[in-house]
Amino acid sequence: MITRMSSLFLRTLREDPADAEVPSHRLLARGGYVRRVAPGGYSWLPLGLRVLRNIEQIVREEMDATGAQEIQFPALLPREPYEATNRWTEYGPNLFRLKDRKGADYLLGPTHEELFALTVKGEYSSYKDYPVTLYQIQTKYRDEARPRAGILRGREFVMKDSYSFDLDDEGLAASYQRHRDAYIRIFDRLGLNYVIVAATSGAMGGSASEEFLAVAPTGEDTFVRSTESGYAANVEAVTTPAPAEQPVDGRPDAQVHHTPNTPTIESLVDFLNGAGLGRVFTAADTLKNVLLKTRQPGEQDWTLLAVGLPGDREVDTKRLEAALEPAEVAMLEESDFARNPFLVKGYIGPGALLANGVRYLVDPRVVRGTAWVTGADKADHHVVDLLCGRDFTPDGTIEAAEVREGDPSPDGAGTLVAERGIEIGHIFQLGRKYADAFSLDALGPDSKPIRITMGSYGIGVSRLVAVIAEQSHDERGLIWPRQVAPADVHVVIAGKDETIVAGAEQLAAELDAAGLRVLLDDRKASPGVKFADAELVGVPTILVVGRGLANGVVEVKDRATGERVEVAVDIAVPHLVSLVRG
Amino acid sequence: MITRMSSLFLRTLREDPADAEVPSHRLLARGGYVRRVAPGGYSWLPLGLRVLRNIEQIVREEMDATGAQEIQFPALLPREPYEATNRWTEYGPNLFRLKDRKGADYLLGPTHEELFALTVKGEYSSYKDYPVTLYQIQTKYRDEARPRAGILRGREFVMKDSYSFDLDDEGLAASYQRHRDAYIRIFDRLGLNYVIVAATSGAMGGSASEEFLAVAPTGEDTFVRSTESGYAANVEAVTTPAPAEQPVDGRPDAQVHHTPNTPTIESLVDFLNGAGLGRVFTAADTLKNVLLKTRQPGEQDWTLLAVGLPGDREVDTKRLEAALEPAEVAMLEESDFARNPFLVKGYIGPGALLANGVRYLVDPRVVRGTAWVTGADKADHHVVDLLCGRDFTPDGTIEAAEVREGDPSPDGAGTLVAERGIEIGHIFQLGRKYADAFSLDALGPDSKPIRITMGSYGIGVSRLVAVIAEQSHDERGLIWPRQVAPADVHVVIAGKDETIVAGAEQLAAELDAAGLRVLLDDRKASPGVKFADAELVGVPTILVVGRGLANGVVEVKDRATGERVEVAVDIAVPHLVSLVRG
Repeated sequence: MITRMSSLFLRTLREDPADAEVPSHRLLARGGYVRRVAPGGYSWLPLGLRVLRNIEQIVREEMDATGAQEIQFPALLPREPYEATNRWTEYGPNLFRLKDRKGADYLLGPTHEELFALTVKGEYSSYKDYPVTLYQIQTKYRDEARPRAGILRGREFVMKDSYSFDLDDEGLAASYQRHRDAYIRIFDRLGLNYVIVAATSGAMGGSASEEFLAVAPTGEDTFVRSTESGYAANVEAVTTPAPAEQPVDGRPDAQVHHTPNTPTIESLVDFLNGAGLGRVFTAADTLKNVLLKTRQPGEQDWTLLAVGLPGDREVDTKRLEAALEPAEVAMLEESDFARNPFLVKGYIGPGALLANGVRYLVDPRVVRGTAWVTGADKADHHVVDLLCGRDFTPDGTIEAAEVREGDPSPDGAGTLVAERGIEIGHIFQLGRKYADAFSLDALGPDSKPIRITMGSYGIGVSRLVAVIAEQSHDERGLIWPRQVAPADVHVVIAGKDETIVAGAEQLAAELDAAGLRVLLDDRKASPGVKFADAELVGVPTILVVGRGLANGVVEVKDRATGERVEVAVDIAVPHLVSLVRG
Repeated sequence: MITRMSSLFLRTLREDPADAEVPSHRLLARGGYVRRVAPGGYSWLPLGLRVLRNIEQIVREEMDATGAQEIQFPALLPREPYEATNRWTEYGPNLFRLKDRKGADYLLGPTHEELFALTVKGEYSSYKDYPVTLYQIQTKYRDEARPRAGILRGREFVMKDSYSFDLDDEGLAASYQRHRDAYIRIFDRLGLNYVIVAATSGAMGGSASEEFLAVAPTGEDTFVRSTESGYAANVEAVTTPAPAEQPVDGRPDAQVHHTPNTPTIESLVDFLNGAGLGRVFTAADTLKNVLLKTRQPGEQDWTLLAVGLPGDREVDTKRLEAALEPAEVAMLEESDFARNPFLVKGYIGPGALLANGVRYLVDPRVVRGTAWVTGADKADHHVVDLLCGRDFTPDGTIEAAEVREGDPSPDGAGTLVAERGIEIGHIFQLGRKYADAFSLDALGPDSKPIRITMGSYGIGVSRLVAVIAEQSHDERGLIWPRQVAPADVHVVIAGKDETIVAGAEQLAAELDAAGLRVLLDDRKASPGVKFADAELVGVPTILVVGRGLANGVVEVKDRATGERVEVAVDIAVPHLVSLVRG
């Protein structure tokens, strides 16, 4: 196939678009791959669509190789199935909702667990039918609060979503592993630099879950990895190693101290260290109690929640929200304090919380036998040596404290370092949440129903176009890996000479005949403009046909390395074919 | 590729689905190709998705061959461009509208003229850039009042829509012709029986327009064709040949007659023929005046409209609506008559209409010099010999009368016969409506702007799956043409014998190695069940491997003709390959 730039619907841009925040967005827009149509809505121009299709094809091949079967659902879906699983409500403002002409409620599908479960229920009935895995490559919709970074986070995007249906947990684990392996093959074939991290499961419900994150400084997700082991995890999923419990017998009694003007941890520590108590306190010795309120989906009223954590740590909102999901969480307002006068701002302690029935969850570091400086529930007073398990017993633990570089790795090997990534894949062991919602059973060999267990697995296909661009570019433009590039060879006609034009056309025709996809720059532009566009567009191999042709040579340039080689024109075609075919 | 029915996500149904009105819907559901998810919303199961993709590929190949370039737009589109062309309003309840989380208005694209025009405006500026034709194969949405017939008329469906952009009318005519030729190639490759009919242009605006209609008794569109010429037209587009005008001088004066109890045409004709007026009257001599009201899009108030047509013809609502589009039209209510006392029901004549300023349009047969019996605007009175052009002058003509078999063909050759069809393609010369809305200009060689002229062209890709099924089936099931079939050969293992199973597996493997797509029925079902399913699923060639294998023969059955041939097992593979490759 020869694509002529003289007629190709492509206009490269010299300037970055005003709203482009990240390299992939800048370069995909400047290279004429995508155009913005609406907030979070992009059109795919010819070269962009080719890259998208190439990625789709790799995903499809690897999914088919697992035995998964491709089907396709509508994007416009009725409310009822999503009502049955409560996701109509849980998705909150992220869901695009609409009514049809009769007033019936519809949504634009963000993921399709409900529909796949219902479809399998409709077709299958016997245990002999299972296991089965189905997938689709389909357009999804999410009304992001802040669509950003071009196609990295759009409101309409292409996803591969698949769903496994198994009779038992072992089957689910096997289906999960098959997906995990397929995802590794897919992301390897795409040439991506990525990590697999333990993840929370978001609004999907369920248990085991991992995310594939492409490493990128522009990523929205922060993850941590161990300096010594292979451990990597989304910050939301990092578990805090609990220290060993300590005896409570024979420990000093808790003592209330008058600590005037110490509403902050810093002022409190300073005060105590100046109070002649005979030891040195740090912020880590204090127990900070953060007051919040939570509300379950569909509920009207808020419930108070207190989170106790070492005073040297802040609450990480994302970890907090992940820990409490699907409940909403909010800070207290003045009126909440007014309604609960036992909450003495700056001096809240476990005592008043537990005495007044406030749910009290603590950081995993707060174990039995640890002693804390904390609020005494009275202005300007703190209590020292308040012992967990003796003086107070929390209602449970919560992973809400910030994770820091240097924290011990949860697997015990090394410490954590932070990096940023972009989510490119997500695999979940959903379990029976959806099967329960729709009574998805198989009739067993003993004629008893077996409740099906599901997995759900997603790849952000259109996002991958941007992720690859994010990982593979330089200041001059895009650098596509061969397997997804919009063409194999970019032939630049560098001169107006009849012989140069004819020579380039001849080479393009021969490359085409050899089965290569050729992008031929036959425009009436200057060689300088054409070279710049070739760098911007990013086809991996550039063939320059110019003055050297008179001496029987053409130039082959490697877009990634910048390396140029002169090649005799009569061996140029086999040379390029072997380059492309590897 | 071998697809094993033992694990294929396919369950055929013995019973027709309750809501299936047409053969294609019945058989696509029973054959496990599609499943209903919502009113007008269907999922594509594995075999259905294959047929859909095969059709897409044929459409894509022929579009690419015209030089059209594939791009892709979102389905979720902002209101503003559709507001600029007034289609936000004109589409009425057929448009799915929704708001995002910020309250901004969006729609689900029914067609994309606006976005393509804006995109070309964004990329192109010089006359040297043109012409260009762009297309997409994309999901479309229309909130049909009555989704029906499965995927024949859904609310979410796949369309190929393309748009041509030319500098002048000749260019547009050439782009139109290129599409017309490509559509003919596409529908010929799909093996369809279809006609090309002159069409009205619906809400698209513009001039020349033709529809491709697949001939099918279940079609929603009625079209007429000439018994003698190649003329064919949508009923909405049939023009009525006007008779020659006649002199008005020297013709008898109009006379009012007392015609008691003659509110209907029939009673009037009977009365007149019994009144001794010395001639015979038929319904065709009477002028029936039908009162309506119309309202332009966005208007609040209705305007009266009278349509005068020969008394032997009824108003055809679709023709009337097409003639008045984009205005809404409604029958008068009692309150309208009450407000306009000059309208004497059953006796309305041109006199009162024109005297009271009611817009009065007549059938093209009502030409100057024709004499009519019509209402005298007084109960129980009619006027005879009311002469058009002497006694009344209408405001214009309208194509609102029913078209009948036997009517003269508008091209003067033969008479019309009626048939039913399903719209599969539509080509429009839009002209400058959209370019005007967005000031889409090219800078000419003289630096003056040239307003671009557009064409718009659509193929209902997902609908084609049903249309092919509609034209190609029998009482036992579907009969796919080779070029779209979900497999090349359906191998039935007709027996439990080890040797039969092994022989069939061996043949399937060899067919696969030869590049054929094999559907292998390796289920534990009885041969009878397998044969019935093979007929239902409709793969064009069925290979039965059964007891004959012991004698070295297998059976090759042609699904369409039912013809069965015994073939020696050792030549079965080349035999099938040559059948499939044609």
